[in-house]
Amino acid sequence: MSHTIRQKAKLLNRVRRIRGQVDAIERALESEAGCEQVLHVVAGCRGALNGLLGEVVQEHIQSHLVEPLKGKNPMAADAAEELADVFRSYFK
Amino acid sequence: MSHTIRQKAKLLNRVRRIRGQVDAIERALESEAGCEQVLHVVAGCRGALNGLLGEVVQEHIQSHLVEPLKGKNPMAADAAEELADVFRSYFK
Amino acid sequence: MSHTIRQKAKLLNRVRRIRGQVDAIERALESEAGCEQVLHVVAGCRGALNGLLGEVVQEHIQSHLVEPLKGKNPMAADAAEELADVFRSYFK
Amino acid sequence: MSHTIRQKAKLLNRVRRIRGQVDAIERALESEAGCEQVLHVVAGCRGALNGLLGEVVQEHIQSHLVEPLKGKNPMAADAAEELADVFRSYFK
Repeated sequence: MSHTIRQKAKLLNRVRRIRGQVDAIERALESEAGCEQVLHVVAGCRGALNGLLGEVVQEHIQSHLVEPLKGKNPMAADAAEELADVFRSYFK
Repeated sequence: MSHTIRQKAKLLNRVRRIRGQVDAIERALESEAGCEQVLHVVAGCRGALNGLLGEVVQEHIQSHLVEPLKGKNPMAADAAEELADVFRSYFK
Repeated sequence: MSHTIRQKAKLLNRVRRIRGQVDAIERALESEAGCEQVLHVVAGCRGALNGLLGEVVQEHIQSHLVEPLKGKNPMAADAAEELADVFRSYFK
Repeated sequence: MSHTIRQKAKLLNRVRRIRGQVDAIERALESEAGCEQVLHVVAGCRGALNGLLGEVVQEHIQSHLVEPLKGKNPMAADAAEELADVFRSYFK
């Protein structure tokens, strides 16, 4: 079972919170709120999406590469783990 | 008039496209599409938000700092322009 | 006095540590160390440079925009402060 | 043979150019050049390191995951290719 199916409920919650943030950007623009408010919600939404992408990528590496390769191809499993480390330093 | 009000229609279009991408992430998760499809739409959505933030930041710098300071405080206007350059290298 | 002159000693220390990291990348390549070591030192060096750029940008905003504009042009000073917040969320 | 050994000469050239950029940051600070020059060379150096990391990561994925897994484990090879796409959108 794919990791995005296994974690469907958790990921859907995250995506709905992000949609709430996108709606907040729309309201700030519609209501002609000050640009500092627009900047703030856009930056926050970008951070949330960064976090979502980071989580899906880590799960992708673990469930499609590290786990299935550990037994059969330890070198490839290590190479995948090293990628996970580099990616983690990106999605702080 | 704030830049986000002056560009309200254009920014609202962009935000609605982003919401469409967020909806696409939700559909991919709901329909239990493969994780590669989820990865792809999340990465695309993040890129779009990056672009939106980059645009709002550049307008913020131009309309609140560079334009009003050019005549009265050219050093501060130059400093703001230099920031715009650094930021631009970030929001490619 | 420009902030990069005022903080010359501190910034030079940081740059010399970064050069040490760049030298470490060179040694890892020269000595044909495993690619995981090369990946690790390159990712670390990039993080250090990100931090350096973040610090210089924040000082640039404070000393050329927020400080000099506070008294004369509070709206512009606020706009600069808002930029500092957005940038801070970038250079974690 | 590891990809960083196979591409040793090319990667060493890149690292030496980056060290030249780090030296340029040091000179700009030592000579008390204006902060806009320091900002400019730091941002440029960060971009070069980003590019180096992107290249080493792509080679890492291709030579340790996609190539060796293609024949034996096509699902894992596809998962690795999808990672390469996401990473590519990062290291523009």
